[in-house]
Amino acid sequence: MKKGENLLEANETVLYQYYVSKGCLRTYFIDQAGKEHTLQFAINDWWISDYTAFFSSTQAIMNIECIQDAILYKISKKGMEDLFLKIPQLETFFRRKMEGAFASFQKRILASLAQSAKKRYLAFITTYPNIEQSVKNYHIASYLGITTESLSRIRRENAKK
Amino acid sequence: MKKGENLLEANETVLYQYYVSKGCLRTYFIDQAGKEHTLQFAINDWWISDYTAFFSSTQAIMNIECIQDAILYKISKKGMEDLFLKIPQLETFFRRKMEGAFASFQKRILASLAQSAKKRYLAFITTYPNIEQSVKNYHIASYLGITTESLSRIRRENAKK
Repeated sequence: MKKGENLLEANETVLYQYYVSKGCLRTYFIDQAGKEHTLQFAINDWWISDYTAFFSSTQAIMNIECIQDAILYKISKKGMEDLFLKIPQLETFFRRKMEGAFASFQKRILASLAQSAKKRYLAFITTYPNIEQSVKNYHIASYLGITTESLSRIRRENAKK
Repeated sequence: MKKGENLLEANETVLYQYYVSKGCLRTYFIDQAGKEHTLQFAINDWWISDYTAFFSSTQAIMNIECIQDAILYKISKKGMEDLFLKIPQLETFFRRKMEGAFASFQKRILASLAQSAKKRYLAFITTYPNIEQSVKNYHIASYLGITTESLSRIRRENAKK
């Protein structure tokens, strides 16, 4: 998949989740005012989808955009369920993946409630090392829930140290 | 468990997750300034733990408080893994539970980025119907990431309609 292409658009039925072998994608939501909010970035060895829609086989509310040329592998919900019946160890593998993803979302909710924008930025560059070259400033700002101006200020302060 | 008791305190090793048969609990985090942030409420038929710590058998960063007399059942991580080997269908059951919980966290992150406090409050009373009698105002405010004054204002506006 090429940079700039969309893997998924809001209102499409979500049939697959995707494994990122190489590249970078982002999941984002467009609110009624047309503003973008970035939920997640996916880099090498991460999985990506609109999971709410994928698990319930319903329509996406998210969009997924390729922001760095990527190699992806996809699997359908039915494909997974069939695999789990054949190879129960794979169900264990995916359950543990899901546990890890759940724990990381728990941390993110907590950070949005309890941490300053500066701390959230530092956590971001730890979670996604080397991602800053690939993504636009407004991608990061909309992930942190701040303006691009605030992001610039935090970066300047951080660079001074 | 009686109202006011703690099921879990920060820095304890988390060995169990809990099924709420009856009652109400809340998971909260205390930041460096001593401020409480509520991550989750659990009512009838919900599960509760510090999942990040439970999955990795590490120390809790959360506290869990009983806010309405409760009947709970607990299961250890090892107890679950043993059960899954004996009854593979239970692994499927818990994987699906985890998928649902993951999807609800995804919605919550999105709401914190994209929705107004008022919309988040309306989503809260839909997710947790009849909970308002049991919980204190600062529990709800710290779940929504707003002050108790803002919560009162939103409630007044909502009652007018």
